[in-house]
Amino acid sequence: MQLPALATPALVVDAGAFFHNVSTMAAALPAHRCRPHVKAFKSTALAAKLRDAGHHGFCAATPREIMGMAHAGLGADLLLANETLDARRLAAMAALEARVTVAVDSDETIAAAARAGIAAVLIDVNVGLARCGCDPADAGRLADEARRVGLEVRGVMGYEGHVMGNADRAERARGVEVAMAALTAAHRVVGGDVISGGGTGTYDLNHWVSEIQAGSYTLMDGAYAKAGLPFREALAVAATVLSRGTRDGREYFVADAGLKALGMDHGLPELELAAGTRAKVWFCSDEHVTFALPPDSSSAARPSIGDLVALRPAHVDPTVAYHERFTVLRDGVVVDEWEIDLRGW
Amino acid sequence: MQLPALATPALVVDAGAFFHNVSTMAAALPAHRCRPHVKAFKSTALAAKLRDAGHHGFCAATPREIMGMAHAGLGADLLLANETLDARRLAAMAALEARVTVAVDSDETIAAAARAGIAAVLIDVNVGLARCGCDPADAGRLADEARRVGLEVRGVMGYEGHVMGNADRAERARGVEVAMAALTAAHRVVGGDVISGGGTGTYDLNHWVSEIQAGSYTLMDGAYAKAGLPFREALAVAATVLSRGTRDGREYFVADAGLKALGMDHGLPELELAAGTRAKVWFCSDEHVTFALPPDSSSAARPSIGDLVALRPAHVDPTVAYHERFTVLRDGVVVDEWEIDLRGW
Repeated sequence: MQLPALATPALVVDAGAFFHNVSTMAAALPAHRCRPHVKAFKSTALAAKLRDAGHHGFCAATPREIMGMAHAGLGADLLLANETLDARRLAAMAALEARVTVAVDSDETIAAAARAGIAAVLIDVNVGLARCGCDPADAGRLADEARRVGLEVRGVMGYEGHVMGNADRAERARGVEVAMAALTAAHRVVGGDVISGGGTGTYDLNHWVSEIQAGSYTLMDGAYAKAGLPFREALAVAATVLSRGTRDGREYFVADAGLKALGMDHGLPELELAAGTRAKVWFCSDEHVTFALPPDSSSAARPSIGDLVALRPAHVDPTVAYHERFTVLRDGVVVDEWEIDLRGW
Repeated sequence: MQLPALATPALVVDAGAFFHNVSTMAAALPAHRCRPHVKAFKSTALAAKLRDAGHHGFCAATPREIMGMAHAGLGADLLLANETLDARRLAAMAALEARVTVAVDSDETIAAAARAGIAAVLIDVNVGLARCGCDPADAGRLADEARRVGLEVRGVMGYEGHVMGNADRAERARGVEVAMAALTAAHRVVGGDVISGGGTGTYDLNHWVSEIQAGSYTLMDGAYAKAGLPFREALAVAATVLSRGTRDGREYFVADAGLKALGMDHGLPELELAAGTRAKVWFCSDEHVTFALPPDSSSAARPSIGDLVALRPAHVDPTVAYHERFTVLRDGVVVDEWEIDLRGW
């Protein structure tokens, strides 16, 4: 990735890779077949590019994301693909001039949605990931209860997150089939037009849903890059080399992006020097990354104090949540800035 | 930790533990002997409590932290305990109505500071951690260069971060002694009044510095809690139980705080239920934590949908950087809110 002079750390997006990803998805799953997940990028400016590519429905993980999308005029069909019991936030979403649907998976979440004036829900069904979602056998009863208290039940959702990261495509496909058997069985009982599920890792394997909830395809990350998908890594954290030193005879370098600029749950970032050399990351501190050149590097690859390097975070979503904006680059030139305006809850 | 009704996830501070930590440090290292590190809490409201306890000098890791402290009237003696080459940010710090000192460790960082109009520097000396800091043998030459270009050299700093987390106090003490031998030797050549170093883990073991740079003592975290220090864990992330399910015959629960509310580089958080029971955290997702009760739990410990739980993050600093405010509790009642106003760079 070519980097211009930037105040660092800076979250940078390669426009070429990003728009390749957007058009690839829009061709594979046009319009309502993809419901982009804003949790992956938390930016209404980026979401507007997906709307321009034909996607008018979006899903989100937090009420703040729903509120921000509606206020930005992107509220044609918003799904909170998550449960909340927060009466104030539910009421605020219900009051939006936007079409808002929320996920429910229990009597408690149904009661909270109804009390707050929410109009429509999806029954969230557990399809194998130990997270939210009701027992598939309970989906029909919950749909009845939701209708009884006045909610429109638009259908079901179920996220096969437990198979999403499997790098073996055939195993991933088998996992999706098992998970979606549970979801479609629940849908037969629940009814409604919507069967929502999937993600970037299963976007072309999940043939059972009416819409795919995918967000990571826009920017990609280290984990998804190993899954053989047609999407390109579009995101990096640019950092400036601040210092260098020697330990046990090995030279190391220090750049100014660390634990507060990178999601670390999937491990260390990869680091690429301006010349394209991959460096070895030793460790990250709050505001620093310490790295060394590969043993066989030419002296020309050796960075100078002040040079920029590009870090590829292992996990994009929690990385984005630390930053205030994307700096958009094309061929190493800044062409745009997209505010990351959907952070927090 | 007693928790009142809160919109979650919420970063909560136990006022009793926090003020115990503040007074314990102020008694051990009064006034200028402790230079609190704002990177640990990123809040001018919290910093003001430390000023009230007698500490008038602060250090920081980013220009944004320095700027915010100065604008909040906490600029009596601010140290950027980190290098920067950013001309715009250096000039902005130089223009503050505040006393600003920056760390330098190379000809490049000295030239950048001088060009921007910075008045004073410390020579940052590497004392064993593979991060910023010059070779101790180069400290005198760099001090001469800094003075030659018109900078006041106030002294030296050196951070023994490589021994900070050692849970064995005697080993920690030996590590400090070795590191500080390098720093005091550099100081004899550099001169100046300031020898700055240390941290929470060595605050009572480092007898060689004129001031200790400690920040974690205010809130503490899982890693430091194992080091036998007199400071109490004062921070938690409050989360609401949203859902429950069963996998392989074991019941699990899901609460609404995850990878975007927790620094994860030191691993999973600990989770405490309202009744004081410690639960077993299975994994964290972007906005969720999945956990189970210990096998021998009473049924009374079993949380209901809507109950609050407290997560103890393994690493405080990158946790704080995700949040907008601290909610301050005393005996389970909200008594204050402190804005986290120093995020970003």
